[in-house]
Amino acid sequence: MSKVAAFGEVMMRLQVPGYETLEKSSRLDYSFSGSGVNVAAALARYGHTGYIITTLPDTPVGDAALAYLRKLGIDTAYVNRGGKQLGMYFLENGFGVRPGRVTYSDRRGSSFNTSPLKSYEAAAIASHIEVLHLCGITLAMNDNVRLQMKQLATEVKGAGGKVVFDCNYRPSLWGDDGYAKARPHYEDLLELADIAMMNEKDAECILGIRVGEYDRITQLKQAIPEVARRFRLQTVAGTHREINGDNTHSLTGYIYTGETFRFSRKLTFSVHDRIGAGDAFASAVIHGELKGDVSQHTVDRAAAAAMLAHTVAGDTALFTEAEVSRVLTDHIGDVER
Amino acid sequence: MSKVAAFGEVMMRLQVPGYETLEKSSRLDYSFSGSGVNVAAALARYGHTGYIITTLPDTPVGDAALAYLRKLGIDTAYVNRGGKQLGMYFLENGFGVRPGRVTYSDRRGSSFNTSPLKSYEAAAIASHIEVLHLCGITLAMNDNVRLQMKQLATEVKGAGGKVVFDCNYRPSLWGDDGYAKARPHYEDLLELADIAMMNEKDAECILGIRVGEYDRITQLKQAIPEVARRFRLQTVAGTHREINGDNTHSLTGYIYTGETFRFSRKLTFSVHDRIGAGDAFASAVIHGELKGDVSQHTVDRAAAAAMLAHTVAGDTALFTEAEVSRVLTDHIGDVER
Amino acid sequence: MSKVAAFGEVMMRLQVPGYETLEKSSRLDYSFSGSGVNVAAALARYGHTGYIITTLPDTPVGDAALAYLRKLGIDTAYVNRGGKQLGMYFLENGFGVRPGRVTYSDRRGSSFNTSPLKSYEAAAIASHIEVLHLCGITLAMNDNVRLQMKQLATEVKGAGGKVVFDCNYRPSLWGDDGYAKARPHYEDLLELADIAMMNEKDAECILGIRVGEYDRITQLKQAIPEVARRFRLQTVAGTHREINGDNTHSLTGYIYTGETFRFSRKLTFSVHDRIGAGDAFASAVIHGELKGDVSQHTVDRAAAAAMLAHTVAGDTALFTEAEVSRVLTDHIGDVER
Amino acid sequence: MSKVAAFGEVMMRLQVPGYETLEKSSRLDYSFSGSGVNVAAALARYGHTGYIITTLPDTPVGDAALAYLRKLGIDTAYVNRGGKQLGMYFLENGFGVRPGRVTYSDRRGSSFNTSPLKSYEAAAIASHIEVLHLCGITLAMNDNVRLQMKQLATEVKGAGGKVVFDCNYRPSLWGDDGYAKARPHYEDLLELADIAMMNEKDAECILGIRVGEYDRITQLKQAIPEVARRFRLQTVAGTHREINGDNTHSLTGYIYTGETFRFSRKLTFSVHDRIGAGDAFASAVIHGELKGDVSQHTVDRAAAAAMLAHTVAGDTALFTEAEVSRVLTDHIGDVER
Amino acid sequence: MSKVAAFGEVMMRLQVPGYETLEKSSRLDYSFSGSGVNVAAALARYGHTGYIITTLPDTPVGDAALAYLRKLGIDTAYVNRGGKQLGMYFLENGFGVRPGRVTYSDRRGSSFNTSPLKSYEAAAIASHIEVLHLCGITLAMNDNVRLQMKQLATEVKGAGGKVVFDCNYRPSLWGDDGYAKARPHYEDLLELADIAMMNEKDAECILGIRVGEYDRITQLKQAIPEVARRFRLQTVAGTHREINGDNTHSLTGYIYTGETFRFSRKLTFSVHDRIGAGDAFASAVIHGELKGDVSQHTVDRAAAAAMLAHTVAGDTALFTEAEVSRVLTDHIGDVER
Amino acid sequence: MSKVAAFGEVMMRLQVPGYETLEKSSRLDYSFSGSGVNVAAALARYGHTGYIITTLPDTPVGDAALAYLRKLGIDTAYVNRGGKQLGMYFLENGFGVRPGRVTYSDRRGSSFNTSPLKSYEAAAIASHIEVLHLCGITLAMNDNVRLQMKQLATEVKGAGGKVVFDCNYRPSLWGDDGYAKARPHYEDLLELADIAMMNEKDAECILGIRVGEYDRITQLKQAIPEVARRFRLQTVAGTHREINGDNTHSLTGYIYTGETFRFSRKLTFSVHDRIGAGDAFASAVIHGELKGDVSQHTVDRAAAAAMLAHTVAGDTALFTEAEVSRVLTDHIGDVER
Repeated sequence: MSKVAAFGEVMMRLQVPGYETLEKSSRLDYSFSGSGVNVAAALARYGHTGYIITTLPDTPVGDAALAYLRKLGIDTAYVNRGGKQLGMYFLENGFGVRPGRVTYSDRRGSSFNTSPLKSYEAAAIASHIEVLHLCGITLAMNDNVRLQMKQLATEVKGAGGKVVFDCNYRPSLWGDDGYAKARPHYEDLLELADIAMMNEKDAECILGIRVGEYDRITQLKQAIPEVARRFRLQTVAGTHREINGDNTHSLTGYIYTGETFRFSRKLTFSVHDRIGAGDAFASAVIHGELKGDVSQHTVDRAAAAAMLAHTVAGDTALFTEAEVSRVLTDHIGDVER
Repeated sequence: MSKVAAFGEVMMRLQVPGYETLEKSSRLDYSFSGSGVNVAAALARYGHTGYIITTLPDTPVGDAALAYLRKLGIDTAYVNRGGKQLGMYFLENGFGVRPGRVTYSDRRGSSFNTSPLKSYEAAAIASHIEVLHLCGITLAMNDNVRLQMKQLATEVKGAGGKVVFDCNYRPSLWGDDGYAKARPHYEDLLELADIAMMNEKDAECILGIRVGEYDRITQLKQAIPEVARRFRLQTVAGTHREINGDNTHSLTGYIYTGETFRFSRKLTFSVHDRIGAGDAFASAVIHGELKGDVSQHTVDRAAAAAMLAHTVAGDTALFTEAEVSRVLTDHIGDVER
Repeated sequence: MSKVAAFGEVMMRLQVPGYETLEKSSRLDYSFSGSGVNVAAALARYGHTGYIITTLPDTPVGDAALAYLRKLGIDTAYVNRGGKQLGMYFLENGFGVRPGRVTYSDRRGSSFNTSPLKSYEAAAIASHIEVLHLCGITLAMNDNVRLQMKQLATEVKGAGGKVVFDCNYRPSLWGDDGYAKARPHYEDLLELADIAMMNEKDAECILGIRVGEYDRITQLKQAIPEVARRFRLQTVAGTHREINGDNTHSLTGYIYTGETFRFSRKLTFSVHDRIGAGDAFASAVIHGELKGDVSQHTVDRAAAAAMLAHTVAGDTALFTEAEVSRVLTDHIGDVER
Repeated sequence: MSKVAAFGEVMMRLQVPGYETLEKSSRLDYSFSGSGVNVAAALARYGHTGYIITTLPDTPVGDAALAYLRKLGIDTAYVNRGGKQLGMYFLENGFGVRPGRVTYSDRRGSSFNTSPLKSYEAAAIASHIEVLHLCGITLAMNDNVRLQMKQLATEVKGAGGKVVFDCNYRPSLWGDDGYAKARPHYEDLLELADIAMMNEKDAECILGIRVGEYDRITQLKQAIPEVARRFRLQTVAGTHREINGDNTHSLTGYIYTGETFRFSRKLTFSVHDRIGAGDAFASAVIHGELKGDVSQHTVDRAAAAAMLAHTVAGDTALFTEAEVSRVLTDHIGDVER
Repeated sequence: MSKVAAFGEVMMRLQVPGYETLEKSSRLDYSFSGSGVNVAAALARYGHTGYIITTLPDTPVGDAALAYLRKLGIDTAYVNRGGKQLGMYFLENGFGVRPGRVTYSDRRGSSFNTSPLKSYEAAAIASHIEVLHLCGITLAMNDNVRLQMKQLATEVKGAGGKVVFDCNYRPSLWGDDGYAKARPHYEDLLELADIAMMNEKDAECILGIRVGEYDRITQLKQAIPEVARRFRLQTVAGTHREINGDNTHSLTGYIYTGETFRFSRKLTFSVHDRIGAGDAFASAVIHGELKGDVSQHTVDRAAAAAMLAHTVAGDTALFTEAEVSRVLTDHIGDVER
Repeated sequence: MSKVAAFGEVMMRLQVPGYETLEKSSRLDYSFSGSGVNVAAALARYGHTGYIITTLPDTPVGDAALAYLRKLGIDTAYVNRGGKQLGMYFLENGFGVRPGRVTYSDRRGSSFNTSPLKSYEAAAIASHIEVLHLCGITLAMNDNVRLQMKQLATEVKGAGGKVVFDCNYRPSLWGDDGYAKARPHYEDLLELADIAMMNEKDAECILGIRVGEYDRITQLKQAIPEVARRFRLQTVAGTHREINGDNTHSLTGYIYTGETFRFSRKLTFSVHDRIGAGDAFASAVIHGELKGDVSQHTVDRAAAAAMLAHTVAGDTALFTEAEVSRVLTDHIGDVER
């Protein structure tokens, strides 16, 4: 198996239990997550060594985060300690027609976002790992962090490793004229990437690729090959999500590799916790690529992994390949006993 | 914005968590509610000043109720303290085909139901508020409470305010021959009311208005104008509820004002907690009338408010006008982040 | 072993967890107890058959109470069902210098307190049991209940059984001039009793026996023999409690039988839950008398049982004779593994 | 009403709350159950006296199990104490497409499975009870337990009682070549049985009866009369279950008695806790047979009881006959208040 | 009674339940507090109108804080909304020799600390209230907040009101050379104050007053009159705390007014939650001054209030004057029932 | 820092929360521990690499155990997976005079105790680690496990590493004539050990060394040098514990090395969770030896570590060297903020 490292911030998730609101409740459940955390943990569960490259505060909150990462099976050798702040967010579950709500604390002053430019030993890390995962959320943080991303990606490519970039554009993080601000940075990262996670909306909005007034699949088939060509990407993958009226979501995954598209079948399922599903999809794509699986298998398993991620509380979904595969082939099963 | 006071009992709600029964569990979650509480709190959330006119016991339980009312945003200036008892009810949630159960403690001896006739300074209150909300549950209590209701309503009308009366007939509270016993009191209250919450079944059973063997809408269109005419009501409003087999309910609201009916579209939705939805509807009708909204807007928002009330635990639904409006216009949304 | 029945009300105990107050918390733990419950359960644990003679409401709350009694090991053959109300009380734990608080709901309308005079088949019960336990709390309820007590006691005596009466005078239940009101009823019950639980204060205040300005032990030694003589009591027993500043209590038990006093040594111990300790003492006295133990053993074990009752949450202490005996003889022990 | 005893193991159920996994959570809810427990408790709730014949360890865990059985309303007169081990299983709830998981601790060394052959006073029990319930799970344990089953069944038959045998074949308990190993024991038990719970798959796999390539109902109609004939069974009953994609199950019950089949209508319902539904069905069949109900009523109520068992947490469903009947006839109801 | 307003930040308190650590637990209890919150709530409980002058974020977290303030009985008329951040701190309880730990999130970017200089209508507030409470923690924040403090104090003095300043020096908030940085600001505030909360250490370290190598009482008697003289203070008050080895603390309060010292007796007590005791002391001093109590009564009650604040979880102690007085005079009591 | 591996079983700890009993409660908190787990985790917290050599079942329970070990900071490279059973124990906390209770499930069939003789690659492990920790609890299991212990110890000694043996004799695990059965195995292990944890009672009972009728310190000073001599031990260390009446324990540590005794001062402290304190002492001794600290420092820190282990829930105490040292030197501190 391989050594995969994800670079990104660890956040504290503070969730109101059940369907209560912050105003009515007095209790929170906490855990620690982040796009990089989710990917490193999922790949560790698939049998790889999953690292997170990050900085945690030197406080009891940082200690708790570190222990949680270990519990997830992440190798914490590349976790720095320093500073005093950890990004946090509050989560209130929605119910039916009432949407859930996420309230962020200020991440700008977090240990991760204020760590010195040369905090991470990029060359040493690059010589040790085979895959680096980066994400558009991190890219939105600040110039310093963006430089750290590019430095790591450059070193990894130089050492013969692969770079995965998940576009993951969050409008609220880029502010007004966000797409214009973001484009040059996204272009830089896509230049460094071998595998990109994105769909036709990212291509259109961030990269300015024309997709026309067509249905989404046609748009996808126009835009993604152009992106792959322009940035010499080995693989591009992503999902289309529909939110249905009956507490279910539908998800279709695609993968574009070797100039060919493969689509998963459309999966429809009940949703327990929506957060982290994109990372589950990305992790299964990376795993498929690392295994050299045929792309139809990879996209099927990635869609199934994303679906399963909706059935567990918390951002980080931990399923073995066998568990993911079984959900693809099985009928809905009775309790296992 | 306006000053609105609701007169009614505060009850302690003792709920078994999750889907357990009193026999199996050993834990309860408690809160405080009541029709008046729900209306005063909802109107406070819409931006009005919401008072509750009531009496709470002079015990730690009463202290807890008072703090809870404040938390809901209710102005407690008209809350008296005295006596030792608070009405209570136990709630066991149903699941699927298993119905929920409510078990009441004896309310007859509660501080509210035994407060002396002249407990409340009706004239002073009437000179200060613009709307008084009364409810059929309170009307079922005893002669003393009924006199307090009529006294308050008379004073408010005399001072130029409006009286809202929610018929809310509960068979178990009136006993045998309940409709016959209740009718004169309902007639007295409707005489004093400007706005009434009711539907064709109330008109038929309580007031004895013939509705014929027609469908419910036709019955409604026959009965409600007659009621409005007889009691010189400015506005009558109410809902039709259907309980579906798949854990969803459907709700259609109507409003009759200016000799015209307006209906909301029929809303179908998953149910988390059924209690208090009628008060959410009534509150939004009062708010619409106070704002002078067109009646179609008012009934649409009232139905949406009732629908949202089914998505939160507890009797008292707290949504701003913006939140109610959004659920009317939006597609079902993803988590807000 | 013997058949022992206790007559009395079952109450629902609603306790705020930890050291929170009703005003700050939103959760309660509930259980069911009462003096009779505690005695019947403790005697069942000692190996006797312990009955409770009572009436529970015909509601889900009554079902829950019944299941709880069974769990305690009580034989529920003499439990009637009827009415709709169960007595309740709220308990807020104190901490250090902050005293705990008990808030009662209205017990007057409870199923037990409103059950018809001839609810219980006194003669049939009397022919089946060997000991009847009665308590001063029940005596304070109303005339109907007092008649039921006396009827049961008379039948049991007639059938050759023994009657135990625990004076347990609660000032708040008798109101103004309580002692004067209570005295004739206490005298009636003591006339019927074979064993009484009381101390010199009960003798002085309720029965009007002069105890002089002496220390408590001297007062006890004057008053109790007089009481025993006057009412032809086989055994009188009770405790002296001291509440110390450091979260500990001290307890000394006495027993007077065969015209002789025996005292336990003074036990000092940390307190987790103070309620129900008197019933634990009474139960161990009854058990000792039924076994025909020497009175020094009985009073020692009764004091130890009362002490252990302070170490468990809930009103009802469940310890075997072996567990009680061990705490008497053992050094304070390490964890048992 | 009748006296019914079930023979079988009591197990401790250790359930992760909500939809968490053992790996993520740190809390468990525990209760005690088993096929015999479920049947004895359900019959007690229908008004019979329900005994469990079993052995519990002589430890605090055994004490807790015993108290729990009493709470369920089971008569524990035939519960032996001895040994140190209780069978346990962990339960993780599934959600949507993610299946639930059951992990057993080793039952082989449990107090029940290692109790000496002559532990139970079979003749005395047989002279006291009218019905004995046995189950295929118990039959899978070991030779000693199988002998105890047969001895009890023989004594009960000899004393004029009825024997109910629920086939309940669990492949994981019998291992390789399980059907071949199991067949002689199943045949022995069916020879002793008056009522059997089974369906066409049991007939085919365990007893080797040919059912052909037909639909399940046709297979059932071929196999069950043959089984009834061969083993001279008074009644055979069972269910067909379908697991649907939308978190609902469908259930159809059948009963074959007097050479006639009766089927319940197919019930479809949301599922809260799947475990114990078969025992709820069996209990209602036994109750119907004991009452002498017409078989259509019996199978309808049995299917409704099984359906209700899916709506409560825990293995043991406690519903009165009235509650079961109401769910059959009622429209889905609003909260009862 | 009076109108008292406290100016200061509201913080979210995130507490690990029981004696667990952030690293081992996964749950938090949250509430909202701050020095101003504690003082406003305590004075409201004494019967005054207690305002908090602050800014809360315009987020669900801010909504929750606002509801919590209302529950505490605080008048929220002077609460502004704006910004997105609320200060937070994590609390891990200590046990015995293991100290508790507080971990702060970054408060610098909070809505309160970044609110524009003219956020509060100082003149309007000053014309309405009688007392303004300020605190040294707020003074440590930034220049903008310090200007807001001085502006409010100046307006209140100008309008004839009183200013209370609690020195409450926190070394970690001022950093290196903290005393030197803090001194001019403390001097400004003391110039504006009528009542100051401080002790001899504050006088020495912050103001540079020589106290010599004497015992603390002698130092106090030297320093405080000099401070009072220099800043023309009507009253100065404070406490001496000792932390004992057996989980108890000892507290002695003093008050200096009319050139006379009064001391409470030294109170020793078990500690449940140490935070907020200083604010309880200050609130009782303010209440005593507003009532015009004799200073011995005031200091006795303030020390008792501080002691009681150690017996409840949460920063904010809510006791009536009667409850505080009773703990002064009573023996340690049994449970109140 | 060093590489230390502990060999031993991982057990699941199932604890009733608070001070409830298994009979009254329905909830458990679970974690995973064992002597080896405690030592490996404590040494990891001191900065070493801490391995556990063990076998976990290949079930969801085993997955949960593995994640928990990682959370503790243990390196799980030497954890095998296989079998289906994990040892478990139930823990009921005592309160005051009521002792706590531990109830074990059957460990004999656990994955660890049934793992094949050659499960662990002893030579490879020995070549990698510097210290091996073994414990008398493991020694009591079975011959196979004893052979595994001796094989590992032999290999480690052969590879130049050190062996630590903690005598930790548990009478209940050895049964009748336990000391006689245990002696040859203890002698074998002590022959292989460099460092032993024991006291004079172990020397007397297990090894048969005469200690005379003296006080414990004199006995210790006679027995331990003889043991050290006979088995050529570099270091012997241990504790004397006293259990006081007021919920406190007292602990004195000793170390014997270089033919010299050093004693810690006697520490007296409140106890929150007694389990795992001996392992905390042993870990600190190992750490001191690995650092080459002077033995007085080592024994002082070891006693302090043991004391701190009593202040946290759970068997495994996680304190840094700095935290341990501070509790030795500091006065009891206020909350750290």
